[in-house]
Amino acid sequence: MVKVKIMKAISERNDEVAREIRENLKNLKITSINLISSPGSGKTTLIERTISLMKGKINFGVITGDLFTPLDAERVEKAGAIAFQLNTEGSCHLTAPMVKSALNEIQLSGINLLFIENVGNLVCPSVWDIGENYRVVILSVTEGSDKVEKYKTAFYGAGAVVISKIDLLEHCDFSLEKVKADLSAINPRASVFFLSAKTGQGMDSWCGYIERIACAS
Amino acid sequence: MVKVKIMKAISERNDEVAREIRENLKNLKITSINLISSPGSGKTTLIERTISLMKGKINFGVITGDLFTPLDAERVEKAGAIAFQLNTEGSCHLTAPMVKSALNEIQLSGINLLFIENVGNLVCPSVWDIGENYRVVILSVTEGSDKVEKYKTAFYGAGAVVISKIDLLEHCDFSLEKVKADLSAINPRASVFFLSAKTGQGMDSWCGYIERIACAS
Repeated sequence: MVKVKIMKAISERNDEVAREIRENLKNLKITSINLISSPGSGKTTLIERTISLMKGKINFGVITGDLFTPLDAERVEKAGAIAFQLNTEGSCHLTAPMVKSALNEIQLSGINLLFIENVGNLVCPSVWDIGENYRVVILSVTEGSDKVEKYKTAFYGAGAVVISKIDLLEHCDFSLEKVKADLSAINPRASVFFLSAKTGQGMDSWCGYIERIACAS
Repeated sequence: MVKVKIMKAISERNDEVAREIRENLKNLKITSINLISSPGSGKTTLIERTISLMKGKINFGVITGDLFTPLDAERVEKAGAIAFQLNTEGSCHLTAPMVKSALNEIQLSGINLLFIENVGNLVCPSVWDIGENYRVVILSVTEGSDKVEKYKTAFYGAGAVVISKIDLLEHCDFSLEKVKADLSAINPRASVFFLSAKTGQGMDSWCGYIERIACAS
């Protein structure tokens, strides 16, 4: 009973801070995206490519979550965004209080869209509200088309799902039809994008989505 | 303080059960492997291929961990092993008590090697002893060569590391040299295998390892 109570207290405190973050970002007219995927599905590469393609149109801020290293923030900063690295020191997901502490360190005025790149993990980040407006889940074609069915908690609340690395589609046993069918059973309202941040294929449609949600706030 | 105490109690109880499992498997002359990776790195495919290549030489038992579905156990059973599916109902890693409950359901006599396929997650399973003799971590070339550095906790205690999907190497920005360098800094004693369970390339060497550790018990 004690354990349940403590976990509930942690979770309630998290959700309270998440609401506070959402309110503050709304006042600043900043749209925020919580980017969730397995390690190596292409979160950082998608952010880099989006920033370079939309430079001058949208001002980006990026909070990158990682266990120990500063590697992702360095990459994103090079691409031209304001970036802040959050290291969880081994913890498996970001929390709202972590994101709040990062926001205190960033010059927010002028930013239109904030990417929050979660720790590479398709399980734990799914159940933590970190104050985002939209949750975007990335699944690369190299991971196999059973992943929506197997990791459904991640896909339930996604505003958008990105099927990434489609330049590798012809080399993988991946059925777009199965993924589409599983998604429409679990979360039929999610926008779905098929793209390769490496070759640029499908990036137009994704950037259109980013522009729409950034301007809506 | 209360939270710390409870977590310590859970962890101590886990480690106690893990020791008990190891002792029981030792008495039965069964070698056990805890297979850890991100979702979609190829754990199940590697198990399937290993079983078909070593049929008649080694008798395999497999416990497959997954959040909700029975998909992996069904695949492994088809390949010719005794399989048991453990569903964690959303929890992000296996624990020793879960494995113990699965072992109570399996006919163990005659098995030489037990694969325990953990939940697809490169973070949380790393810090839980589930009674294994060897920890094997799989990293696919499609995930990128920064992953040993970024998810070092998973690679610290690995007896072996499998670099999988090398049939896709030419299509990916993946540096085997970087991964080797990072591994030798973090865990120089780990055996390293480069293979494709799909094409069969490199499977000889991996099967040799499996045979050696199975016969050693």
